[in-house]
This record gives sequence, C-alpha cells and structure tokens, in this order.
Amino acid sequence: MTQIPNTTSTRRILLTISYDGTAYAGWQRQLNAMAVQQCIEEALCKLTNEKIVITGASRTDSGVHALGQRAHFDTASRIPADRFAYALNNCLPFDIRITSSTEVASGFHARYDAKGKRYTYRIHNAPHASAMYRHLCAYVPYQLNIPLMQEALTSLLGTHDFTAFQSSGGTAKTTIRTLSAIDLTCHGSDLVLTVEGNAFLYNMVRIIVGTMLDIGMERIPPNAFDQALQTGDRRKLGVTAPACGLELTEVFYSIAQ
Amino acid sequence: MTQIPNTTSTRRILLTISYDGTAYAGWQRQLNAMAVQQCIEEALCKLTNEKIVITGASRTDSGVHALGQRAHFDTASRIPADRFAYALNNCLPFDIRITSSTEVASGFHARYDAKGKRYTYRIHNAPHASAMYRHLCAYVPYQLNIPLMQEALTSLLGTHDFTAFQSSGGTAKTTIRTLSAIDLTCHGSDLVLTVEGNAFLYNMVRIIVGTMLDIGMERIPPNAFDQALQTGDRRKLGVTAPACGLELTEVFYSIAQ
Repeated sequence: MTQIPNTTSTRRILLTISYDGTAYAGWQRQLNAMAVQQCIEEALCKLTNEKIVITGASRTDSGVHALGQRAHFDTASRIPADRFAYALNNCLPFDIRITSSTEVASGFHARYDAKGKRYTYRIHNAPHASAMYRHLCAYVPYQLNIPLMQEALTSLLGTHDFTAFQSSGGTAKTTIRTLSAIDLTCHGSDLVLTVEGNAFLYNMVRIIVGTMLDIGMERIPPNAFDQALQTGDRRKLGVTAPACGLELTEVFYSIAQ
Repeated sequence: MTQIPNTTSTRRILLTISYDGTAYAGWQRQLNAMAVQQCIEEALCKLTNEKIVITGASRTDSGVHALGQRAHFDTASRIPADRFAYALNNCLPFDIRITSSTEVASGFHARYDAKGKRYTYRIHNAPHASAMYRHLCAYVPYQLNIPLMQEALTSLLGTHDFTAFQSSGGTAKTTIRTLSAIDLTCHGSDLVLTVEGNAFLYNMVRIIVGTMLDIGMERIPPNAFDQALQTGDRRKLGVTAPACGLELTEVFYSIAQ
C-alpha cells in the first residue's frame, strides 16, 4: 500500500532574494550552467536534508540582477520561518543574499499571485565606461536626447498589446500588458529607468530600453513605440539592451508578504 | 660622452582614473601583488614603448576604490593628450578606467599640487548584506543612532591636530589637517558619508567611519571624536572600518585640470 505523505506538517516559506546576476546563467535551473535557483536549492538541501524545489516569481535572464526576487518552497523542517534567511546566507555565495523569509499560506504562489513587478535599468552615459559599476549598468558613450526619450516613454503607459515587445522564446498566452509607471531620471552621467507593470513579456524591459536609447540617439523615429504598439511589428523597435543593466527590483502581491 | 636626453619634446599628461579596488593591492606598485599603478604603467609601456612611471595623487589602500584618482606622467609620445584615455582603456582591465587625460604644465604635480580631496564611504545597514554592492560598501547589521552619528561628526570640522586619527605606517610630517565638509546621508538602508579636507592621514577616513559606527551603536561615548582630538589618543577612537566601503571621489587643484 502506498503511504500518503503527511503534508499537514509542511509549511510554505516565501523568500526575498537579492543577487548579482553576473556569474549566473539566470534564475532558472539549467543542465550545464549554474543558476541562482540551483544555488538556493542546494543550500536548502544542506540545511534541511530535504530535496526542495523553489518556485521563483520571475525567470530572470543570464546576467540580470535582482534586488527583490521572490520564491516559495515547501518544507517539513522546523527551522523558524524568519531564520531561513540567516541560515541560507551562511551557505550561499556572497553574490546571492536572502533578505527575508516568512511563512505564507499553503496555497500562496510566488509567480501566480504576483500582481505586478518593478524593474530598474541603469545606464552609464559617459565617454568612458564605469569601473566600479561595470557589472551593474549598461555603458552608452553616445550623446542622448533625454527629453525626447522621456516623452517617447509615455506612449507605453496603460494597457496595450505588447506583441512587438518580446523576443522569440516567450511562452505568454496573451501579449496584453498594463504598464502603470515608467520613469527615466538623470543623475549626472547615470540614467535610471524604472518600469512598473502587471506582467512583462520575454525581454520586454530590455527591448523598451534598447528602443529608448535608439530614440535618444535619433537613430529611429521618436514615435517608434507608438508604431510598434499599432502594428505589432518588432522591426519598428530598437535592439535588446544588455542584461547587465537590468534589475528585478520588486514583486508586488495583493497582501503584503 | 653621456647623451643628454631631449627633454624639450616631452609632455606631462594628467589622468583621471576610476577603479574598482577589489582585485588590487591598492594604488602603489608592490613587489609581489598587482597594484593599479602597475597596470596603468604596463598599459602605457605597450602604447608608447617607453618605460613610464606615473605619480598618483593618493596611495589608496588595498580594496579601496576610486572615482576620481589623479596621476601624472611624462612622455615623448605624440599621442594627442585627450586620446590617452581611449588608448589606455583599450589595454586596461575593465575594473580600471581612465576617464580623462589632459596635458598639464611640466611643473604640475598630481600629489603636491592637490589642494584637497573628497572621499565617499558607503555602508549597507540592514539585517542581511548587499549582494549587488557587496564589494562597494561595508555591511553593518546593527541598529545605528544616525542623528547621534551626524551630531558627533560636526566636531571634526575645521583645523585640528588629527594625530589620533592615523594607523601606524603613516609618513606625514605634520598631523594638522583641515576638514572643510563632512556629511552623512541616509537613503533607505544605505548610508553615505562624504568627507572633504585639505589632506588626510593614513587610514584617517576609515578610522573616522569606524568611530562614527561605534558611536552609532553606542559602544563608545558620543564625544569620542572630541576626546581623541584633545588627547591625541588613538584608543579613544573605534576600529578602522573596512576598505571596501571607501572611494577616493575627487582630488581638487587650484586650477581646474
């Protein structure tokens, strides 16, 4: 007779995770390269002696960073929920840090329950690249028309079919997305773009950034975003900006977790 | 007969240099470890076929960063002054960047002509360390009394004998220094201290930071700076803060270079 596991004693734990993505093949576990997910799963195995699979809110690409990635897992361990952060940080490399751990309802899902996300994209716009922040920003040595970029970005606000704004390989069932905030600020030679939306297509933020930069360099028309939204044509848009400038900053849930 | 070199054809070039000090044994050339100075001298040798020694404005310690280190050198090469930055960046590792190169008068000296310096010290004050900025800030998980720290720092402004504020190994002839500005700001979990002065003793900024943190944790009295200035006693002060939080931000000259 098959024994039914005693699931009443398992808890679901939600982690907040920050990582420097430079050394990793992205969030999702890979067969032949180290991913952030695998590092955390191996640390959890050491801690609990359980084979645990964690589910992330977002599958960040290779080289993309996170300040507030979220992931949940189930465990039968009796480690107090808030101690997982400390215990995991003792086992993890320094480029991955768990910044909080908390118990959530057993039906809570880090990805499906996410109501939105905020991304940050950093650009060093100067004649020479940044030495100190080279892994954390994209480097653009060309002169940029910032007001033109800021004006162009406003077209993206609201609910649109963003079908042109994805790389091949995406698995989304619908390409309708709502962007609730988009903001480009300038701090000397450093540009910071923040984007908030209910969900994002594959490479959507990096395509927005690449297009914004092409508009700023006046390589493509300032209404390129409008044209792409209207036609669904990827070719109206610019290149996909480098991964290193991108950070998953926050994942929003309807109940604060 | 010894040939007198034709010095009339040499030019003095002043570099502005930014580096991530993590991988280096500091600015100054060492016998058995890689220093920033050596990297730049080797790149200059490749470019000019000359054996060039560069003179830095500040001998930053191992692990200390720079946004605006300055250094001068003499060369007979005909490379236009402003092209040295581009040419050197093609030969240098990505954690060292030359951000400007300009010709200066033959008597100009990067160290002796410096009228002052600004340093920045970054602290991540949170329960868990920073993943993304781990090399660029010190990590302090303890609760800090920020207003107490800000108040204490004001004692340091002005001209004082800072003899207590140096580690052994310093070579300064006088320990009188003038601090013209000192400012601690708080951005969420991140604290940023900026200090400007005419010159600094060996480890002076890191001793100020370590003491400020000990005051903030209420481990030592809030008047520790006053006591150390009055007594010259290093033991009144706190520990030397870690190198990784420190950045040489700018070197000031009386004529803009």
